Amino acid sequence: MTQRPGQLHLNAFLMSVGHHEASWRLPESDPFANTSVAHFKNLARIAERGKLDSVFLADSPVLWNNVGRRPAGTLEPTVLLAALAGVTEHIGLIATASTTYNEPFNLARRFASLDHLSGGRAGWNIVTTAGVDAARNFNLDELPAHSDRYARAAEFIDVSLKLWDSWGDDAPLGDKENGVWGDDRKIYPPRHVGRYFKVEGALNVPRSPQGYPLLVQAGSSDDGKELAARYAEAVFTAQQTLEDAQRFYVDLKGRARALGRDPGSIKILPGIVPVIGATEAEAHALDAELDRLIKPEYAKRQLAQTLRVKPEELDLDAELPRDLPSEDQIEGAKSRYTLIVSLARRERLTVRQLIGRLGGGRGHRTFAGAPEQVADAIQHWWEQGAADGFNVMPPVLPSGLEAFVEHVVPILQKRGLFRTEYVGTTLRDNYGLPRPANLNLGRDLVAAAE
Amino acid sequence: MTQRPGQLHLNAFLMSVGHHEASWRLPESDPFANTSVAHFKNLARIAERGKLDSVFLADSPVLWNNVGRRPAGTLEPTVLLAALAGVTEHIGLIATASTTYNEPFNLARRFASLDHLSGGRAGWNIVTTAGVDAARNFNLDELPAHSDRYARAAEFIDVSLKLWDSWGDDAPLGDKENGVWGDDRKIYPPRHVGRYFKVEGALNVPRSPQGYPLLVQAGSSDDGKELAARYAEAVFTAQQTLEDAQRFYVDLKGRARALGRDPGSIKILPGIVPVIGATEAEAHALDAELDRLIKPEYAKRQLAQTLRVKPEELDLDAELPRDLPSEDQIEGAKSRYTLIVSLARRERLTVRQLIGRLGGGRGHRTFAGAPEQVADAIQHWWEQGAADGFNVMPPVLPSGLEAFVEHVVPILQKRGLFRTEYVGTTLRDNYGLPRPANLNLGRDLVAAAE
Repeated sequence: MTQRPGQLHLNAFLMSVGHHEASWRLPESDPFANTSVAHFKNLARIAERGKLDSVFLADSPVLWNNVGRRPAGTLEPTVLLAALAGVTEHIGLIATASTTYNEPFNLARRFASLDHLSGGRAGWNIVTTAGVDAARNFNLDELPAHSDRYARAAEFIDVSLKLWDSWGDDAPLGDKENGVWGDDRKIYPPRHVGRYFKVEGALNVPRSPQGYPLLVQAGSSDDGKELAARYAEAVFTAQQTLEDAQRFYVDLKGRARALGRDPGSIKILPGIVPVIGATEAEAHALDAELDRLIKPEYAKRQLAQTLRVKPEELDLDAELPRDLPSEDQIEGAKSRYTLIVSLARRERLTVRQLIGRLGGGRGHRTFAGAPEQVADAIQHWWEQGAADGFNVMPPVLPSGLEAFVEHVVPILQKRGLFRTEYVGTTLRDNYGLPRPANLNLGRDLVAAAE
Repeated sequence: MTQRPGQLHLNAFLMSVGHHEASWRLPESDPFANTSVAHFKNLARIAERGKLDSVFLADSPVLWNNVGRRPAGTLEPTVLLAALAGVTEHIGLIATASTTYNEPFNLARRFASLDHLSGGRAGWNIVTTAGVDAARNFNLDELPAHSDRYARAAEFIDVSLKLWDSWGDDAPLGDKENGVWGDDRKIYPPRHVGRYFKVEGALNVPRSPQGYPLLVQAGSSDDGKELAARYAEAVFTAQQTLEDAQRFYVDLKGRARALGRDPGSIKILPGIVPVIGATEAEAHALDAELDRLIKPEYAKRQLAQTLRVKPEELDLDAELPRDLPSEDQIEGAKSRYTLIVSLARRERLTVRQLIGRLGGGRGHRTFAGAPEQVADAIQHWWEQGAADGFNVMPPVLPSGLEAFVEHVVPILQKRGLFRTEYVGTTLRDNYGLPRPANLNLGRDLVAAAE
């Protein structure tokens, strides 16, 4: 193996009782943990014990599928993370929020608020939200086109950056003697007029400890990669093979460089579903037990929806049908579609086998093994230039996160690959990124008006 | 005094370092407390020590005025209250949010989340948000008309109620053995199509401990009172005289009764700014010291804006100009406008005197006195049918809330007017209101489709 300087980054992707869709059926699992703040506080504390960079919550403003299959309904991430901020001190708090179904002023405000109340630990996973079901919860009949959603996302981020920079860091004065609380000349209203948004005034929150939340992105379509290259500081991605992950890594770093960015300023974290046992055999036994608990009729319906076919077109004991749509016919979750079809074709999986592979990570890489093997897998991808770190997706929670923190993290620490103590106090400190300077995008307007 | 059965209710209205606009200039005050979660945690704990029903945060999605005058910028209330939920157990958590600048799905979700994570302590103060400055942060050039904002508010609440009732209380099953997490037949999508909103799907949060947040309203215009009579369970209101407060109380209870509601199911809480001293003289000295710290040029500019006149039309040492607009020419904060003009005319106040009176409570009643006198004032209005309780607005925080909790609350408790322990666990329990039944408004649609 080649030596690679520096250390890797680890994010814990929290999802009710685990990423495996059948995890809630295990005897150890609380089936109602999806709405339990005590459960999530426990997870955040475990992750912080392991010195992880951050915890992360996915989100979509829609009730997916039926409620029979698995724990349904989730607490809104910015609100839940505000509650987790109170029981942690160092770990970053990354919330997913949609640019398609929010207004920039409201969302920029909530993230600035979360950054203030966590002492600089907020991150925003920027999503455009696929699926017509979400659109129909927001006055629309049809899902806006993929390219439209990404154009709106870019303008949404631009407006948000103007809002976060609408207060100079030195605008608050607190001058009691002269009775001047703040300096009006250090307020820079965006006065933004664009294709999707008109936003006139400054944010009603002073600039926050990090300046603004860490910007995270997770879409891997062409539009998604362009957005990430322009704005993202961390990227979550689903990659099944080392070669695909390396290709994605080189591609995205290259796009960032082409836009004049330091490729080191964008951290790439593929997902990994670590199924951990004391021995390799125990890990595989847990994996098999989880797959056994999947109800195939539910999973087939979900797979059919992802593939845009009817459930009856899928035969559990046969391979996928040959005539599936091509990626450019897919509106939303484009790259995930291609990943799933490629996985099935490459390994000639039956529908039942494919369901087992997806049940754990929904397209993310599952790796079952003893702690040393999991650490090896992580080290290998990191050293081979496929990752700056990993988005850790425990199949069962809390036990899978505990196993990772107690058994895998110490091995990575012993090898010098992962921190043994937090340095700094903010989420950007954890990822080794600088606090963004205040560009005061409204400054020229103020000067011109004077 | 007449005897009145039952006990009164007390809400603590939290605002950075206090409701008096000059409070931040006192030596004791942290001028940057407006963004300090530690400050707000301290306030919530003090209020809970006093067994108060709830704490409340006002809000508007706009940076008001200039930042010179007083602490500017506030953390978004739902996020801040989620953080306060973790350091309290009993006290209600009421957040203001606008129906004009939010989408029902997002807001209903956040309040359901706050209700889950606080164990049933969430409340929503429903506002329609006055002021063109807010409109210009949300793609609009002009403020929507008052009646339009209220029509949208009513539909917004209807949609929210459908969303909160879109899960039967018994929809989650957690049946591990059969692998059935929830009962799809107990999910009732709103399928709402109205004048302002189309919302198709069920909420992605199960029904919360309270069913839905306590509904609070604070507008006292005719439209505002109609909305309150229809939906509100608690009403905050600004009243300067006993007679006005009694008239408002009778009016609103009558409107509720006319709509078929039990008048006892809507609690009316006028604001009171208690300036508390060990003696009456000490209280008046604090009041005078606070007024002395007001910068009249800032306050005059603000008053001019409220009155829709130019600052130069106001003379600090003269009464208000005679020719001011009538209430029906005012778009937003209508009743507050009338209250301020009436106060000035009734007491023949100079602009300087009016500024002093408004500096403490912005139109709410200020009462300076020793603890017994404050308790008497509260008891008197309550017994005279002017209030079911009070919205307590300490002029200085935390000291004004500490003084109220340590010196006024024990007197009210000794007189049997206020609880000595919390009974029940939810915000509605504190206000003596029942948990709303699930009306399952989508049930008929489901039945019809079968």
